[in-house]
Amino acid sequence: MSGSATTRRHRRDDVADVALRILDDHGLADLTMRRLAASLDVQPSALYWHFENKQTLIAELADRIVDAHPAPVDAVTDAGADWRARTRIEAAALRDALLAYRDGAEVVSSTYALGLGSGRVLRRLTDAVALAGLDEATTRRAGTALLHFVLGHVSHEQQRLQYDSVGVLGAGVTSDPRDPDDQAEGFAFGVGLLVDGLGALVVR
Amino acid sequence: MSGSATTRRHRRDDVADVALRILDDHGLADLTMRRLAASLDVQPSALYWHFENKQTLIAELADRIVDAHPAPVDAVTDAGADWRARTRIEAAALRDALLAYRDGAEVVSSTYALGLGSGRVLRRLTDAVALAGLDEATTRRAGTALLHFVLGHVSHEQQRLQYDSVGVLGAGVTSDPRDPDDQAEGFAFGVGLLVDGLGALVVR
Repeated sequence: MSGSATTRRHRRDDVADVALRILDDHGLADLTMRRLAASLDVQPSALYWHFENKQTLIAELADRIVDAHPAPVDAVTDAGADWRARTRIEAAALRDALLAYRDGAEVVSSTYALGLGSGRVLRRLTDAVALAGLDEATTRRAGTALLHFVLGHVSHEQQRLQYDSVGVLGAGVTSDPRDPDDQAEGFAFGVGLLVDGLGALVVR
Repeated sequence: MSGSATTRRHRRDDVADVALRILDDHGLADLTMRRLAASLDVQPSALYWHFENKQTLIAELADRIVDAHPAPVDAVTDAGADWRARTRIEAAALRDALLAYRDGAEVVSSTYALGLGSGRVLRRLTDAVALAGLDEATTRRAGTALLHFVLGHVSHEQQRLQYDSVGVLGAGVTSDPRDPDDQAEGFAFGVGLLVDGLGALVVR
């Protein structure tokens, strides 16, 4: 292993680590293969040994972002097989995951739209919803609806934070982007509506 | 009026018309003030007479996109004061509005996040939800949740259409981005969950 690692100069993991740091420091628009190569002190062409193209690299970052924040074990244990509680916990943990990196929602959203990556972001939600015992098509649709809401909400939060940090927010902004409680409550409210709506479909 | 129009060479409306055409033909990333100025055969500086900056221009486009597709009058008349039907109709009409222009969801989403524009995109949803007679804070939260879902869903649809048109969709794509029925059904399902969840909060 060490021989080949030396030959390759940087391992795939190292490249992804540095890319994730550039993403978090500078945002998705400034994460270029050129900048990444410069940070690693290699030629851009050397990166393509590890990642076929930029989309594949972004997909690796999306998987890392999603996997870094699993639902808290204690909360999952307490919720047991209660699909409502499990779905709320999973959605909230996903929001935390996306918020942990600058442009996290955009990275995960574009990877999902491209059909790249592990697909775990959707599976985390469908696995929780599946405990409700609905048919597979409905479970998938519900998981997808939850994911669209989660990505829509968090990309909005991250856009506002970003605009706020450069001082360009307009007069029409009603909720405070720097108030984490306000954002978390609005998020939980929306997830609650989806869960309650789904509850109406569940035969008891 | 015609004297001042001659002096200004192009009216604000003309500038926005051309910008909207560039958006639809080339996408948001390629809608630059430089390209817009070239299309109008003026210097970029001349545009700032009408629009303070690019964000203000984008906000104007967002308002036009949102206003171009009101809910169909017949459907609204049939629904009367039924807030569930009205909310579904309004959400579906908004989806049509966003889909009518390339990157429509992204344009409206960034304008909303910036707190620019008329704010009508949110008002269309909160006005429909308001018929349910819930308190103002809940109505606003519900409208916001619906908007996050709408924007999340449609930006995903538009990303997929775009990726599909350049042939880069990966193996993980399950629904067909070119199948409008499949997309519309998934959308209506999600809106239905939110409406039903909200229904549980309405005292009859």
